[in-house]
Amino acid sequence: MAGNLNVTVWNEFIHERKPGGKPMEIYPHGIHAALAAHFSSQPGIKARTATLDEPEHGLTAEVLADTDVLFWWGHVGHDRVDDAIVRRVRREVLAGMGLVVLHSGHAAKIFKALLGTECTLKWREADEKEILWNIAPHHPITRGIGERIVIDRHEMYGERHDIPEPDQVIFISWFEGGNVFRSGCTFERGLGRIFYFSPGHETYPIYHRPDILKVLTNAAHWAGEFSARTRAETGGNPRSGEAGSVNEKDPVQPLGRPRG
Amino acid sequence: MAGNLNVTVWNEFIHERKPGGKPMEIYPHGIHAALAAHFSSQPGIKARTATLDEPEHGLTAEVLADTDVLFWWGHVGHDRVDDAIVRRVRREVLAGMGLVVLHSGHAAKIFKALLGTECTLKWREADEKEILWNIAPHHPITRGIGERIVIDRHEMYGERHDIPEPDQVIFISWFEGGNVFRSGCTFERGLGRIFYFSPGHETYPIYHRPDILKVLTNAAHWAGEFSARTRAETGGNPRSGEAGSVNEKDPVQPLGRPRG
Amino acid sequence: MAGNLNVTVWNEFIHERKPGGKPMEIYPHGIHAALAAHFSSQPGIKARTATLDEPEHGLTAEVLADTDVLFWWGHVGHDRVDDAIVRRVRREVLAGMGLVVLHSGHAAKIFKALLGTECTLKWREADEKEILWNIAPHHPITRGIGERIVIDRHEMYGERHDIPEPDQVIFISWFEGGNVFRSGCTFERGLGRIFYFSPGHETYPIYHRPDILKVLTNAAHWAGEFSARTRAETGGNPRSGEAGSVNEKDPVQPLGRPRG
Amino acid sequence: MAGNLNVTVWNEFIHERKPGGKPMEIYPHGIHAALAAHFSSQPGIKARTATLDEPEHGLTAEVLADTDVLFWWGHVGHDRVDDAIVRRVRREVLAGMGLVVLHSGHAAKIFKALLGTECTLKWREADEKEILWNIAPHHPITRGIGERIVIDRHEMYGERHDIPEPDQVIFISWFEGGNVFRSGCTFERGLGRIFYFSPGHETYPIYHRPDILKVLTNAAHWAGEFSARTRAETGGNPRSGEAGSVNEKDPVQPLGRPRG
Repeated sequence: MAGNLNVTVWNEFIHERKPGGKPMEIYPHGIHAALAAHFSSQPGIKARTATLDEPEHGLTAEVLADTDVLFWWGHVGHDRVDDAIVRRVRREVLAGMGLVVLHSGHAAKIFKALLGTECTLKWREADEKEILWNIAPHHPITRGIGERIVIDRHEMYGERHDIPEPDQVIFISWFEGGNVFRSGCTFERGLGRIFYFSPGHETYPIYHRPDILKVLTNAAHWAGEFSARTRAETGGNPRSGEAGSVNEKDPVQPLGRPRG
Repeated sequence: MAGNLNVTVWNEFIHERKPGGKPMEIYPHGIHAALAAHFSSQPGIKARTATLDEPEHGLTAEVLADTDVLFWWGHVGHDRVDDAIVRRVRREVLAGMGLVVLHSGHAAKIFKALLGTECTLKWREADEKEILWNIAPHHPITRGIGERIVIDRHEMYGERHDIPEPDQVIFISWFEGGNVFRSGCTFERGLGRIFYFSPGHETYPIYHRPDILKVLTNAAHWAGEFSARTRAETGGNPRSGEAGSVNEKDPVQPLGRPRG
Repeated sequence: MAGNLNVTVWNEFIHERKPGGKPMEIYPHGIHAALAAHFSSQPGIKARTATLDEPEHGLTAEVLADTDVLFWWGHVGHDRVDDAIVRRVRREVLAGMGLVVLHSGHAAKIFKALLGTECTLKWREADEKEILWNIAPHHPITRGIGERIVIDRHEMYGERHDIPEPDQVIFISWFEGGNVFRSGCTFERGLGRIFYFSPGHETYPIYHRPDILKVLTNAAHWAGEFSARTRAETGGNPRSGEAGSVNEKDPVQPLGRPRG
Repeated sequence: MAGNLNVTVWNEFIHERKPGGKPMEIYPHGIHAALAAHFSSQPGIKARTATLDEPEHGLTAEVLADTDVLFWWGHVGHDRVDDAIVRRVRREVLAGMGLVVLHSGHAAKIFKALLGTECTLKWREADEKEILWNIAPHHPITRGIGERIVIDRHEMYGERHDIPEPDQVIFISWFEGGNVFRSGCTFERGLGRIFYFSPGHETYPIYHRPDILKVLTNAAHWAGEFSARTRAETGGNPRSGEAGSVNEKDPVQPLGRPRG
């Protein structure tokens, strides 16, 4: 089946290259490669990757024009992301590209630029149990997911997460150590859909779990829907015909009657 | 100081009348009396009570006309509340009266009638710790409340709570047994503000805690703001001058020009 | 192509049966028949109709169980709709059936029961121009619709429409006589999606317009999405396996440790 | 009465300094001076001004620390606003300062930085009638305002305004030439409240109208509420004690039991 949803997985790809580290053990080719391999195995999805060290961080205008939904994993390298690339990605989201921000991407420049807040939170590395409660069982993102996802050991992310009130909270997490977190949230900016999903610390094999991968696949289809259908309808760059976001003089005078 | 916010606390008043029970021990005169006594001690608040067994459940047209915010505590007596009284309360909320629904009031007729859903949830009586995380520290309802409220032993209420997406989630609760709950939520219906706050099981002395009472006092001021200021401005029933919610023919033809 | 979205169009069917009237001229077999004929012509949709005068208003448990999205057109017959049927439809929406409420259906019992407000508005029959501005060009409901829809002559519906803040406003209408109206709005209640769309007075051939029909087809797919995919996955009634909205005791004790 | 709400009115102050121009005729000392004079005449408000040409645009750390709500009027000078000052203002809003953005401020850097979108719109200078419909008659911002405000001649601002779905739409405008506009919208970012209000083109005496000034006064109280009460409670800078928005390690281990 020909791919009809184009996914690009971006990763700073720093942790996983440190020899002997847990991240390398879990994701020998990087988190991006693991996710892209999964997406490519799904009918209707064509996946590629991009990383910090590539020219333009791998996010050239051509790559983005061919992307319906961009996944973003970053952590210690946020400051190394070029502001010009952040602006470019932001423009594409506003014009209709989907964006899925993962885990520590809560502090990525692109997330803060689109949400407007600092997106700070509480955290703790205590190897504790997390339970994600599905509070939107009818949402496309939770298709095939039951009422909860249990992760035996994970890093804690806790409220208050400094985000604007989400359009919809999809998951709320419970942590063994006493915290809660809005672990799945949707937003819209311009014509683009955004999903934030917090599971995915680099020292846990979270992205090998079928349930987590199912959420991410659902999220790809949901966030990329507008771009993918526009691509299908136009046969090309889903955002090339977009007038974009410009101030526009409107000549409308529908009644055409002289001022009385 | 003359009272300028009129609070009515409604309680089904069933549990607390059972001799030898825990509720009677904790609230010898009923939950309503405990709450009203607190509110009456606050500057600017005039409080009264109403209960299920009174004529018209104590919620006559006169009482409601003199009420800026109504607190509602019900549990085993939901079905005994007269539908005509529910309609009357609903009309007042739509016209601008505030409503604060407490704990098991999540299943009260009035709450379901205003929200449109069944408001079901998970629950468990296991005497467990609850932590309410304050995720809206700038909201008037959390004035003077820190980042969390800890309740050592309480009944569990858990998601999925079948409510529409709230206007704003104020508190999210963590329960020792693995559940989470949106324990403080705001809604608007018509001109009325609604706050749902889940702490308050009848077998725990929750409503004797200063922090919980502070939340409720804040909520009274927030939910009753429109009604109280309208009362102050009109010197009488804040909703008597209200055209109310009626279909209305609009004569506007602002340009006054003949159809071209 | 086999139908995979089941649409039921409900109409009170009163105006169009009055001999010599404009509605009969425009919709000789009723608004429901006109809409159902259109839907049936669309790939993937199977449409049926139901009207007020049929037993149970045509909305038996069997019909609803086989419906993914219900369209509702009512006006002078709102009071004649049986409360038991309203409760049945409401239950289905809460369990995941889509609902599209048309024009004067703003005052239908089912709409008020789900939204919680009275849904009153301003109106005027002055045969005036309406322009619907599309403010959500990326939403599935506006697929294929440009930046505005112009209706040369229509009844005016104006603000303030007494509805809760919508999840999303899709269209805002301008009327020649000086009014504005949120003419396309989305809501969610329980697991069900709701779309209100105001065009469609019975004396204008609104539902024969390709652009309006395109909006309604889009709305059918959007509102019925959850039900239709659940039907496809289960091969039967999309809501039969639904635990439904019930209070449920939760046994979770994930850590299983003795109270310290 | 001692001032207890500190308002700062910022204006680029360009149009009004052009000799012989309409803006100078209407606002001889600038829009900021006209607004500040009005605010200063209101009980409980202390107002000051700041303009583009002052050092640090008049928005020093000291001025902002002493500001509960900042009004922003800009148009042709958006690009001349220093990015460092924009970041400073943004930090204050996230920490709880109110912000009211006026008219052409829709394209100001600070508004785009907080909302995340480009905030583009349609416009037309055709000297046409505008009617603002009040769709939130219970909101503090519309206190004392009737169901509509009529402006006989104004510049047109029309949809689609590229903003995220507002928390609440307060006013929707009708324009003689066929357009509509969400002319009053509320947002929250961090702990700060934001109100966008579109009336106020520099060639019309909009800010001399009592009804418009009433809206702005109401908006000042609404947006500055958190900062003003915090100032009153702390007796100083309402945001100095603010931990601010930082990632924070949380030591909570409430049950203190060994991992089972």
